[in-house]
Amino acid sequence: MSVDRTRMRWNGWGWAAHKDDIAPREELWTWLATELGMPALLATPARPLEEVTLPASKLLAPDRTALNAIVGEEHVRDTAFERAFHASGRSYRDLLRLRAGDLSTAPDAVVYPRGTEEVLAVLALAAKERIAVVPFGGGTGAVGGVSGTRGPFEEVITLDMSAMDRLIDIDPLSCTATAEAGICGPALEKALRAKGYTLGHMPDSFEFSTLGGWIAHCAEGAANRLVAAKMATPRGPLSTGDFPASAAGVQMKDIVAGSEGVFGVITEATVHIRRLPQMSDCRAWLFRDFESGAAAIRIAMQEGIACSTLRLSDAEETRFQRAYDTLGKTSGAVQWIGNRYFKLRGYDVKPCKLIAVFEGDERIASSERRRFHAVARKHGALSLGRGAGEQWRKTRFQAPYFRDTLLDRGAGIETVETATSWSKLDALHAGVQTALEAAIRDAAPREGARGIVMCRLADASPQGASLCFTTVFPRLLDGDIDQWSRIKKAAAEAVIANGGTISHHLGVGRDHLPWITQEKGQLGIDVLRAVKAALDPVGILNPGKLLP
Amino acid sequence: MSVDRTRMRWNGWGWAAHKDDIAPREELWTWLATELGMPALLATPARPLEEVTLPASKLLAPDRTALNAIVGEEHVRDTAFERAFHASGRSYRDLLRLRAGDLSTAPDAVVYPRGTEEVLAVLALAAKERIAVVPFGGGTGAVGGVSGTRGPFEEVITLDMSAMDRLIDIDPLSCTATAEAGICGPALEKALRAKGYTLGHMPDSFEFSTLGGWIAHCAEGAANRLVAAKMATPRGPLSTGDFPASAAGVQMKDIVAGSEGVFGVITEATVHIRRLPQMSDCRAWLFRDFESGAAAIRIAMQEGIACSTLRLSDAEETRFQRAYDTLGKTSGAVQWIGNRYFKLRGYDVKPCKLIAVFEGDERIASSERRRFHAVARKHGALSLGRGAGEQWRKTRFQAPYFRDTLLDRGAGIETVETATSWSKLDALHAGVQTALEAAIRDAAPREGARGIVMCRLADASPQGASLCFTTVFPRLLDGDIDQWSRIKKAAAEAVIANGGTISHHLGVGRDHLPWITQEKGQLGIDVLRAVKAALDPVGILNPGKLLP
Repeated sequence: MSVDRTRMRWNGWGWAAHKDDIAPREELWTWLATELGMPALLATPARPLEEVTLPASKLLAPDRTALNAIVGEEHVRDTAFERAFHASGRSYRDLLRLRAGDLSTAPDAVVYPRGTEEVLAVLALAAKERIAVVPFGGGTGAVGGVSGTRGPFEEVITLDMSAMDRLIDIDPLSCTATAEAGICGPALEKALRAKGYTLGHMPDSFEFSTLGGWIAHCAEGAANRLVAAKMATPRGPLSTGDFPASAAGVQMKDIVAGSEGVFGVITEATVHIRRLPQMSDCRAWLFRDFESGAAAIRIAMQEGIACSTLRLSDAEETRFQRAYDTLGKTSGAVQWIGNRYFKLRGYDVKPCKLIAVFEGDERIASSERRRFHAVARKHGALSLGRGAGEQWRKTRFQAPYFRDTLLDRGAGIETVETATSWSKLDALHAGVQTALEAAIRDAAPREGARGIVMCRLADASPQGASLCFTTVFPRLLDGDIDQWSRIKKAAAEAVIANGGTISHHLGVGRDHLPWITQEKGQLGIDVLRAVKAALDPVGILNPGKLLP
Repeated sequence: MSVDRTRMRWNGWGWAAHKDDIAPREELWTWLATELGMPALLATPARPLEEVTLPASKLLAPDRTALNAIVGEEHVRDTAFERAFHASGRSYRDLLRLRAGDLSTAPDAVVYPRGTEEVLAVLALAAKERIAVVPFGGGTGAVGGVSGTRGPFEEVITLDMSAMDRLIDIDPLSCTATAEAGICGPALEKALRAKGYTLGHMPDSFEFSTLGGWIAHCAEGAANRLVAAKMATPRGPLSTGDFPASAAGVQMKDIVAGSEGVFGVITEATVHIRRLPQMSDCRAWLFRDFESGAAAIRIAMQEGIACSTLRLSDAEETRFQRAYDTLGKTSGAVQWIGNRYFKLRGYDVKPCKLIAVFEGDERIASSERRRFHAVARKHGALSLGRGAGEQWRKTRFQAPYFRDTLLDRGAGIETVETATSWSKLDALHAGVQTALEAAIRDAAPREGARGIVMCRLADASPQGASLCFTTVFPRLLDGDIDQWSRIKKAAAEAVIANGGTISHHLGVGRDHLPWITQEKGQLGIDVLRAVKAALDPVGILNPGKLLP
């Protein structure tokens, strides 16, 4: 098993032993309190598991016995830790509930299958005995997609896929790899690198999220990397074709991508891989404002410049990042070019940092970097060189831990992510920003309190890009879930009103359910329900997610 | 209306007035007869429309009146020509039947809607009155997808979309264009070029096929170019999102792509467009064999070399092309480099011609061409330069007309197209070739008769490519449809056995129905049936296509 659950936080992100470097940096916290319009940020620790009352497991003894017979007794677990760890994913609402000790969505048991046949047998049993089944990859989802909700059923089990973590095959000629769906990012990448390949897919959740989870939630282009999948359903196995392209009607892999455990359990997937590039050159540029940075990215995409990563932080995110990189640091603080120089050149008003990665053999990586630099220069950018780029790469997987620390210190943090076409991007950016700022003010714990609303542009294509808003705000201690709901609602409505999708990489889960019908239309929802009924007629799979 | 139906052949390809240059070239026909192992090829002309008995229209008077009320009397047509023209698409089987005067699949009437509202009204009427509806784009399909089959219904009408041919909008920032689905290739391309853009999509049927048809049949990557679509269904309009990417569950545009008129009628689509490149440089290379050419294409794709077209003909296709370009030509014969030179260099045994197009500004197009040339050289290729490339581009839309002339002269011609991953490509190529050769011999009109079996590799990606087999064979005059069935069956079984998709760009229609369940699995077919039932509960849309 590539990830040992017992070493992880049951109510937060990642490894229990992880210590981030921001907790002791009081200068940073003082700055943050001022930014949020608060006299101080209160300590708001989470409740320890020992203090929490876990509802009794409702799994019936015969069902337990039947599960034991399928996967082996040691793979059916119902310790307090197992049930608490699997009670939900890691959305902001999930964290609020877990930290408050609300384990009402804890499954009755956690089952660890070791192969597709076991998954099929569990699903057949569950359909027969009417047990809800929640497929669980890394549990890192941020939209409530793996909470142990029962729907109309008495019993609910979580199917933790982490024991299905083998790399099955690499096809070197076709540049594809086939693996079991429970393999997590680092294990898959390590196995690929050992053979000279890379997946080239690194969402922020990379350390813990799984191949199956990426596909089930269409995480950041995972659907584009998907070649083929095997999905276990209560009606048996569904195997998509593994063709590079096909015109033979609707493609089953398009039904698997984004299925969120509602149609079936992804057990195996074949994905595109690339030969490990000779060079992976991560660079940074500074733009005078967001608009010019966005325009440079758009032109680069439409001219076909090959960048494997392009991320543009808006002025707020750049400013926040700078504070995070420097305030209260005793050593190793990142060197930012002197303020005076920025001021002189006009980069001090709304400076926006862009990170770009160029890969391939040295000649290609360099030539693409030069092409991009020419576009960036034309849009007024200043090269910050390699150091600032590598700094981002080194610390990128730290960000999710930061949420726990903020939550300990009286601050909330939420992400709103969407995608839209270039022609709608500016209005969407402004609309969501305004909506978030207003909603945070309205739901703030005191007069004058406010949020920091940051935005990042990424996942660009010739047609458009994703926008990922991160907002940090002072927690309303009495009614923190309601505070979140109001902020979320305002942001989601602004996304829809401005032509964005309700999710670019997190999925629908429970958190985005109120807006999914607006996005798909009633007829679209009817289509999805019909697919669900064809594959899961009893409706045991992941009740209450994806479909309203 | 961008295409005047009355100027087209009702029983063959394209414009009635078209004269191809091969009919009078007796040297070519003599060569072909020898190649096919026939003493001579017989004249086998088609029956003229005047001699054919058209079944009486079964459209009931009240339904005719209701249709008139929706689209206007002049847009409901049932002349013999209209009904004959719309009796089927242009598959080999379709052509055999049309040429023999079998018009049993002629619709009872042809309706030309002028907008989405009219399409919706026609579908609502048809669902209520139980009239089968066959959506019809350009009618160029080669899998029997638009035949006027009635299914369980008494009446059948064809919905010819060619009056819905407006370019609605260009979004220059996002590089997308929105058009009505009935617009055909040249009209769309002309409207785009007038604004400085190009679609960059040119299937062989380009002159007559439509935007809606490309999407409905996933023609050669049309699904990848699709941003958004509107589809009219008997249950109302379905509108997909127009996001550059989305993680909000299964995407409706993936349900529309490949829907083949069975789920609904595509009325509008938004697609990616590109700025017209400064340069479009079409070149040719000669490889010593198919394997080395295929390897060069694979490497080029996996190294990210930007070619907008890459087509490799195998030795048989190269040889056939050469005969076609030269035999019996009195003037303008293409100059092939002298045989002696080829022999000296070893290009005379199994020479395979590759066509590649490089686009962009001059610097980029040249640098990508040089990158490709380096790969080609490494694989033993000889550059044939620009002339041979441009020759292909000039004549590429002539090929479909060739079929009619062959059919007039006692020869049959069929296309089998598939796609697979690089690791399966060689075996698939060999397997289908062997199967085609054997089936043609078995179903030949006389001992010793045989077919020419050619293959072309195209639509390459890092993962795989499509293979398009063209076979020319002597017609069995007594039982030509049975001859075709035997050849088709052998080829399709070899495709499936060797891991290819049953279609890479033509679709399923009726001709590929026998193999679709093998490709999708029974559960996959159940999913498609469920989608069908959700959108078209009465089942009036395109009966007998796509779904077995």
